[in-house]
Amino acid sequence: MIKQIQGGVCAPKGFTANGVHCGIRKNKSKRDLALIYSEKEATAAAVYTQNLVKGAPLLVTKNNLANGKARAVICNSGNANTCNANGVEIAEKTCQLLAEALHIDATDVIVASTGVIGQPLDITPIANGITPLVEGLGNNSLYACEGIMTTDVAVKEIAFSFEVGGKTCRIGGIAKGSGMIHPNMATMLVFVTTDCNISSQMLQKALSNDIKHSFNMVSVDGDTSTNDMVSVLANGMAENKEITADGEDFTAFCDALASVTKYLCRQIAADGEGATKLLECNVVGATDEKTAKTVAKSVICSSLVKAAMFGADANWGRVLCAIGYAGVEVDVQKVSVSFQSVKGNVCVCEKGAGVQFSEEKAKEILMEKEIKINVSLGEGNATATAWGCDLTYDYVKINGDYRT
Amino acid sequence: MIKQIQGGVCAPKGFTANGVHCGIRKNKSKRDLALIYSEKEATAAAVYTQNLVKGAPLLVTKNNLANGKARAVICNSGNANTCNANGVEIAEKTCQLLAEALHIDATDVIVASTGVIGQPLDITPIANGITPLVEGLGNNSLYACEGIMTTDVAVKEIAFSFEVGGKTCRIGGIAKGSGMIHPNMATMLVFVTTDCNISSQMLQKALSNDIKHSFNMVSVDGDTSTNDMVSVLANGMAENKEITADGEDFTAFCDALASVTKYLCRQIAADGEGATKLLECNVVGATDEKTAKTVAKSVICSSLVKAAMFGADANWGRVLCAIGYAGVEVDVQKVSVSFQSVKGNVCVCEKGAGVQFSEEKAKEILMEKEIKINVSLGEGNATATAWGCDLTYDYVKINGDYRT
Repeated sequence: MIKQIQGGVCAPKGFTANGVHCGIRKNKSKRDLALIYSEKEATAAAVYTQNLVKGAPLLVTKNNLANGKARAVICNSGNANTCNANGVEIAEKTCQLLAEALHIDATDVIVASTGVIGQPLDITPIANGITPLVEGLGNNSLYACEGIMTTDVAVKEIAFSFEVGGKTCRIGGIAKGSGMIHPNMATMLVFVTTDCNISSQMLQKALSNDIKHSFNMVSVDGDTSTNDMVSVLANGMAENKEITADGEDFTAFCDALASVTKYLCRQIAADGEGATKLLECNVVGATDEKTAKTVAKSVICSSLVKAAMFGADANWGRVLCAIGYAGVEVDVQKVSVSFQSVKGNVCVCEKGAGVQFSEEKAKEILMEKEIKINVSLGEGNATATAWGCDLTYDYVKINGDYRT
Repeated sequence: MIKQIQGGVCAPKGFTANGVHCGIRKNKSKRDLALIYSEKEATAAAVYTQNLVKGAPLLVTKNNLANGKARAVICNSGNANTCNANGVEIAEKTCQLLAEALHIDATDVIVASTGVIGQPLDITPIANGITPLVEGLGNNSLYACEGIMTTDVAVKEIAFSFEVGGKTCRIGGIAKGSGMIHPNMATMLVFVTTDCNISSQMLQKALSNDIKHSFNMVSVDGDTSTNDMVSVLANGMAENKEITADGEDFTAFCDALASVTKYLCRQIAADGEGATKLLECNVVGATDEKTAKTVAKSVICSSLVKAAMFGADANWGRVLCAIGYAGVEVDVQKVSVSFQSVKGNVCVCEKGAGVQFSEEKAKEILMEKEIKINVSLGEGNATATAWGCDLTYDYVKINGDYRT
């Protein structure tokens, strides 16, 4: 039922996008201002960083989304507009200038920023950039995607079609992962569009539930950014009967949303700063979901596990160690661990103790780009998956370099 | 009153020590078996890792210390004796062989191991090593210290004298930090000796309280080992009146113990795997101690802060970010941050926003080997200090290399 399609955030009906270089960043070949626009007013939902230090744009966006409606997303890269004197003022001014150019209401704008924190942000390049940004609106999901990238190496966009009540709907998303041009503040931003007709309450419910299994299960370096945001705009142009309650239609929408978010999660993890490998930790056999999730995240966050994966070292003792300090009740005597990739699967630990395995085969498996660390707790039926990446020389290089 | 003296764990009266190469490790120039011995029975206290996966030696030691008494500590490096089939058996056999050689009771032995986990450990090299180990007992704290090192670069030992009820007592300690010969499992081991006369209850109370402010505030990579142990032996040979309750004498002992543990904490942090710098985060102005400690540890554990310090980058936004996600209530608008070293002090953030500072001066300060990150929360009177190290290429190298 769910089919991958082209077009990113412009795949859903009525959405256009663009990205330009406006001058926040010195490198003129790098787009630094992105726009997503819905020709019809859309219901909107968002989730924000749990960090007590919150970027100014998040505060303004939260206000603007109080009515559950929006028409546009604007996002700059190169400056996080956080921990500076006039952040809220700049974010509000950005909304106002964009609203004038698009002839929409300023409170219908989602505004976001990513880059260095604690630096003043000048409105001038944004003000100058809005005209070309709006004039170039079209099937340009890719430009928008580029406009929000910082040290990201790969573009992250995806779209799917799905059926709701006999109508074909589309959903698309773009994301930026952990990276920075002046190494400073890792930021995850995800913008999702859909033409599905869904009430803002149900949209928020779908999103708030989804992130527990998707973005909240990703870790690149354990540092929760000040500017993280995931937002969804739903403009209803697929003309399905509005989803206003739980049921088959809502489930169909949630499944489509999960297809987008899980894809972007994997992309963000694989493109973590300095990463050479995507790590996926699958936990099964837990007594409850909380235990499964806590164990999966503990494994994926362990610096020692991450460094071992960089070295293609089947060092399962570190996996067991990370399970042991995760902070949940686990019977170590029941734990099994295997490593898996396209090259095969090797069981390295059963019932809490090492088993004989071919180091050669394990190395062959771990030399691949996508590694699954499979953990069985042997106690119940709950499962969880977390995504991360290896810890490499380049992570240190990217984050240890001088800002200047 | 507290004076630094020579001798490490042999500084207190009646303690001797030794370290030999017994053959667990291939490198013959590396001592891999260490012994500390008290000629009189000593009261003993220990604290162990909170990891659910616990090394077999810890289980045996816990049993042996049930009566609060011990005479000897034996520790091998090169194999953690953890997550293997016969760990407890080997640890018990080690105690038994040592007890025979020393003519003491096997339950008076503290046994510990550090090294690779999940590998079988053969008793043969230990059995062969015990004779030269015992025969060489003397003023050899340094040999014992070398015997427990893995990838540690620096020897960690210290001793102080102090006064209790008009009598001079001595206390000494050795430690190993985070490192591994086959990169596998970071382990912290600390052995403290004293000739102070103190009941086992009060000794345990002193130790259990001390580690909250000392070793529990150290982080090299956030991975809690399976084999961490801190133990204290007190043989009473200083002939002070036995400390059996709170009061002046107990305080004098606790202060001396803290002098040893704080010193070793700094040594362990400074010699963290791949580290080039010791980081110390001092938090003041917190509403309560829990808040102060949580903030200090969050800053010291942030990969982004650690990488910035490696790069001598005054990237205070990352400090603020780590405070924000620490998980305690903090009013960001009241937070100030400064960086300090022997080269001076530079304030980089006041009331949650950046202040103008000389990047040149900041760089000069951060190029030093010991960096203080001073955080003022501006709310109450509680304080805390945490110790860590920078994140470097060598950390990745040490932990990303193949075990084989």
